[in-house]
Amino acid sequence: MVMKNFADKLVAAIRAKGTPICVGLDPRIEEIPQFLVRAVASEGDYSATMLAAQVIIAFNKAIIDAVHDLVPVVKPQIAFYEVFGEDGIYAYRETLRYARSKGLLTIADAKRNDIGSTAEAYAQAFLGEVSMFDGEEFEVVTPIFEADSLTVTPYLGWDGVKPFLEEAEKYERGVFALVKTSNRSSGDLQDLVMADGRAVYEIMGHYVDSWGADYIGESGYSALGAVVGATYPEEAKKLRAIMPQAFFLVPGYGAQGATAADVAPCFNSDGLGALINNSRGIIYAYKKLEGFGEAAFAQAARAAVLEMREELK
Amino acid sequence: MVMKNFADKLVAAIRAKGTPICVGLDPRIEEIPQFLVRAVASEGDYSATMLAAQVIIAFNKAIIDAVHDLVPVVKPQIAFYEVFGEDGIYAYRETLRYARSKGLLTIADAKRNDIGSTAEAYAQAFLGEVSMFDGEEFEVVTPIFEADSLTVTPYLGWDGVKPFLEEAEKYERGVFALVKTSNRSSGDLQDLVMADGRAVYEIMGHYVDSWGADYIGESGYSALGAVVGATYPEEAKKLRAIMPQAFFLVPGYGAQGATAADVAPCFNSDGLGALINNSRGIIYAYKKLEGFGEAAFAQAARAAVLEMREELK
Repeated sequence: MVMKNFADKLVAAIRAKGTPICVGLDPRIEEIPQFLVRAVASEGDYSATMLAAQVIIAFNKAIIDAVHDLVPVVKPQIAFYEVFGEDGIYAYRETLRYARSKGLLTIADAKRNDIGSTAEAYAQAFLGEVSMFDGEEFEVVTPIFEADSLTVTPYLGWDGVKPFLEEAEKYERGVFALVKTSNRSSGDLQDLVMADGRAVYEIMGHYVDSWGADYIGESGYSALGAVVGATYPEEAKKLRAIMPQAFFLVPGYGAQGATAADVAPCFNSDGLGALINNSRGIIYAYKKLEGFGEAAFAQAARAAVLEMREELK
Repeated sequence: MVMKNFADKLVAAIRAKGTPICVGLDPRIEEIPQFLVRAVASEGDYSATMLAAQVIIAFNKAIIDAVHDLVPVVKPQIAFYEVFGEDGIYAYRETLRYARSKGLLTIADAKRNDIGSTAEAYAQAFLGEVSMFDGEEFEVVTPIFEADSLTVTPYLGWDGVKPFLEEAEKYERGVFALVKTSNRSSGDLQDLVMADGRAVYEIMGHYVDSWGADYIGESGYSALGAVVGATYPEEAKKLRAIMPQAFFLVPGYGAQGATAADVAPCFNSDGLGALINNSRGIIYAYKKLEGFGEAAFAQAARAAVLEMREELK
């Protein structure tokens, strides 16, 4: 069936910005410029966790302000927020809210996974809306995170992906399932070879292709995408053929060692089909690029995006 | 190496309580007795999400009060808390804190998974402590969730398990890795058969056995356990032989259809080695057991635990 879906929005945003860069918002508190921590601390009498949350919000807003006109998507990794408990989750919601207000699409990188009503609860939180009683027996419905898409881990099979995809569809949102991850030991499970000669990551690719077939949009891409690491270009090439209609979310560029040549196999012949993520290489560019001190961290992030855009051309 | 570890605490708690029951604290807001919602709503002027959080806390405290002298462990499933954003996460922390104060061991059922510093951030949040700058360049260190153990999803291989296990070890805490899950489509990935005739779940069992070998405690059990669904007793039997030193966290009892006979293969000949989880069958027992109205939901939970204890004997 053909409809407007998350992938259509993604294609439109990539065309509008002229690049498939995704900026990873991984605010490791020890890498954020210390002047920013001191500035935020001087503004209010915060608990330690709320100070961390406010620092993260200030940092992310500056990065978003500096790059929002250049890139289509940002991807906050929730672990770096969750580590500060409920205050960190507040910072996560604020980050998503601010990115949306600047016209960016968002990927909640949370790698959630579960089944049945448990998966539904996660899906409602990240992609949909939540119902609550208010004590007088009628329902209050409210969105929580309002992310445009969510990463999920498919160890549990279709039961563990379907509830996310169904919730996503209701709100024109999307899901990225892990298929071949960028890390060194991803092969422990993903490269195991079946009796028929195929590796587990290929089978997972076939599943994603088939699970996503009912969720194709006008652009020809499905609302179900796949995470495919840039550090394994040979595997990416095979997966591109197995999942022609899946958008690839590609980690591993930059800090993890992958180059523009490595990510080339992740694209379809239409020049679309992949989002290339860079986290540390952009948001902490002030540590590496010459001519930027820590006070110019946001300008350094912008310069790093412009440089990556050229590399990808 | 032999040391005191999470499994030793688990063995001591199971012996002290005389049963391996784990009570799953899955507070689906629509299944919580409505009188409790109204009572909490009348106490304060809460936002909708904070009302949900306060209802969850009140519900869980009543359940914990009713069962804490009977069972060794509780397992709150974080999806049902996260669905209410930062207020839900506050309720999650409060639930863990209250369970600890009543002498219970806790399993944070969050199925987290990632690699490197991202996995470390999750591990610090759930199992360890978190460092923060306070604006004057020294570190404030604080625990966040303080769970005794955490479920993790091993799709990323050893890189995705090691950071959790290392953090757990520092604090005498533990990790349960998904191996064979209880859901209907768990076989999509987990039952795929390798060229050598073994299924993926068996290979994952071997990994868990080998990854956990450096984390064995006095009891002979490792700090790395495995999630093995009660709904697949044949597979559980094989896995018990593959992972003799791993504690099994066994979902699927009761509401998902598994019986005492089904969970028998999850135990070692010492009568130990498995924790049998029951969520809905205990916490919402007031809906099924005769003689308990919704006002007696906590007493019904206690009755359900006593009944399950007899069934398992």
